[in-house]
Amino acid sequence: MWVGQPVEKLPTPAFTVDIDTVKRNARKMIERIQMLGTHLRPHMKTHKTLECGDLMTGGTRRRIVVSTLAEARFFANGGFDDILYAYPLPFDKVEECATLSERLEAFQVLVDNQEALEQLRKRKLGGGKHWLVWLKVDCENGRAGVRHTDPEALELAKAVARMEEVELVGVYAHCGNTYGCRGMQEIQAVAQETTTTVLQFMDKLQKAGVQCPKSSIGSTPSCSHPVPDMGKLNEVHPGNYIFYDAQQMVLGSCKMEDIAVRVLTRVIGHYPYRNQLLVDCGWTGLSLHSFGQMPSGYAIIEGHPDLKMAGMTQEHGRIEPISGQLDFSKFPIGSLLSLVPYHSCATAAMHPIYYVHTEGKIVATWTPTRGW
Amino acid sequence: MWVGQPVEKLPTPAFTVDIDTVKRNARKMIERIQMLGTHLRPHMKTHKTLECGDLMTGGTRRRIVVSTLAEARFFANGGFDDILYAYPLPFDKVEECATLSERLEAFQVLVDNQEALEQLRKRKLGGGKHWLVWLKVDCENGRAGVRHTDPEALELAKAVARMEEVELVGVYAHCGNTYGCRGMQEIQAVAQETTTTVLQFMDKLQKAGVQCPKSSIGSTPSCSHPVPDMGKLNEVHPGNYIFYDAQQMVLGSCKMEDIAVRVLTRVIGHYPYRNQLLVDCGWTGLSLHSFGQMPSGYAIIEGHPDLKMAGMTQEHGRIEPISGQLDFSKFPIGSLLSLVPYHSCATAAMHPIYYVHTEGKIVATWTPTRGW
Repeated sequence: MWVGQPVEKLPTPAFTVDIDTVKRNARKMIERIQMLGTHLRPHMKTHKTLECGDLMTGGTRRRIVVSTLAEARFFANGGFDDILYAYPLPFDKVEECATLSERLEAFQVLVDNQEALEQLRKRKLGGGKHWLVWLKVDCENGRAGVRHTDPEALELAKAVARMEEVELVGVYAHCGNTYGCRGMQEIQAVAQETTTTVLQFMDKLQKAGVQCPKSSIGSTPSCSHPVPDMGKLNEVHPGNYIFYDAQQMVLGSCKMEDIAVRVLTRVIGHYPYRNQLLVDCGWTGLSLHSFGQMPSGYAIIEGHPDLKMAGMTQEHGRIEPISGQLDFSKFPIGSLLSLVPYHSCATAAMHPIYYVHTEGKIVATWTPTRGW
Repeated sequence: MWVGQPVEKLPTPAFTVDIDTVKRNARKMIERIQMLGTHLRPHMKTHKTLECGDLMTGGTRRRIVVSTLAEARFFANGGFDDILYAYPLPFDKVEECATLSERLEAFQVLVDNQEALEQLRKRKLGGGKHWLVWLKVDCENGRAGVRHTDPEALELAKAVARMEEVELVGVYAHCGNTYGCRGMQEIQAVAQETTTTVLQFMDKLQKAGVQCPKSSIGSTPSCSHPVPDMGKLNEVHPGNYIFYDAQQMVLGSCKMEDIAVRVLTRVIGHYPYRNQLLVDCGWTGLSLHSFGQMPSGYAIIEGHPDLKMAGMTQEHGRIEPISGQLDFSKFPIGSLLSLVPYHSCATAAMHPIYYVHTEGKIVATWTPTRGW
């Protein structure tokens, strides 16, 4: 019903995706990782749509990462395979993981503890299949994973390799600590450190006689500006780059023209006594993810560097000048504003539909998966 | 598929609703407002389900408030009527508001500016109907509404009353400033002030010869501890009370036993070196709404006042002791924890399905509406 319409006609708040930017981001990452001499396993968690998955895999629909079982199911049903469920194996979801493992060519899970391995052992796969397992190693990121410095890391790898029911496929690390960086130099220092750590760990495995064919690290900052040594890894797994966002721009991963998504919103009121506009986008349309800490508040208001998204409630956003008096005549009630989200993963998660456009004309609507 | 199962079987993260608490919250509010001598027009924005709407209206499915047109559509399709779309009329949605006005007995809109009124004038309703309009007045809350002290408030009321195509139904104020209070006394002071202001404004209208039958104020804090003067209003419109949450408990609106909702989550990892557990609930399951500012962080961990939800990423939550060393043996991997959300409107908004239980046994699943 929306195809062929200009984005200006959309009911707001509306999550829009510039298909040209998305295609360029997808293509540039494919080329960059090819040049680097390794393989791309793109993460689906930001967009959760079959269409973006298709673009990020260059149409192969093979070799992806997902963060939830809902995504795994959704992409499997959409014809994708070689799916890595890169999440510490949740014990309530072992049975469904088994079903996916039996059904797909290569459904892969991740473990960082012995108890998880025991769960896999107890659920033997049918059809002569083995569980395909990645070992999650924590390289100074401090979230999931067994620390690379912990003797347990090698022990767990040995245990996986030893167990008949499972096959050790690879070592997986997420350099989420790149999100604490500012600028390319700091990002590359973390990327180098993570790469070196993983490669040293792979050496350690080899010396211990543990068969482990693959290694993978990833994050959008590191893969947007990779260091040459990342070419020695077998795979990398960034995700956010398909959309990018204000956070990635602040980090130095991308430029403004690389950000593919916006939230369109309309002015719904003028409040001159407090020097504020109200718009029809609150936290249900944007999320609170910037904590309002950017100079422009909760979002960047495109084309208006003098404005700030100062506050939000469920369905209302407050916009005011960063300084000085607002010229209300420039923003009539009913007029459109375009918000650049701080964190596109979080903003996308608030929208049941994405409006896809080329140069402002809608060409498709995409429906993401949700839940778990 | 889940009915009859214990909540412990649910895949996590899971948003659970205690139906007994919900029923009690609904009944207590109905009784409280009846005792007060006025009418309840419950707000649907927190839960967005037909089932809660039914309970909150005592089964009449009449006299509700909604915050989005998606809710209006959803409740209208679900057999509800006398629906107030309590949101500054968005100009892109006038046509659909007209359709609802023509179709329902009493679909009502809200205006706080002359331009909105002009939009209504331009779209005449069929079937001899008039637009039913509430005037939004801002009584020191500082969001939408024309300020009660602004001469424009009276002028706008006169303009609505004068215009042939519309009918002035009421004056509507939201005392959202109760959310800045601590304790019943402060809440009641704001409730009293808002009530007095609205009643004075109604007097002003009467003296000016403006016909305006109704007045309404609302917020969960004020309606949980109403002041007697609120009985002089025609309606009140709280919403969050159906679930309540940690925020309302901190404000003094409710007690722990009144909070009907939880997010169930499972332990997915032990990280003794940093004294932390990981759980399978991140901001997609909880939202970031507390900003982590409670002593217990982003949520209250039920039954564990010594624990803190210290951080979250998309699908991971970090739990640690408020002080001292964590006894990991108490929280085996795979075991369940129950999180009390800080802001139930925000947490509910992250879940495509609610699991409804009585004493831990699932009796229904509810599907909320989303979008705009």
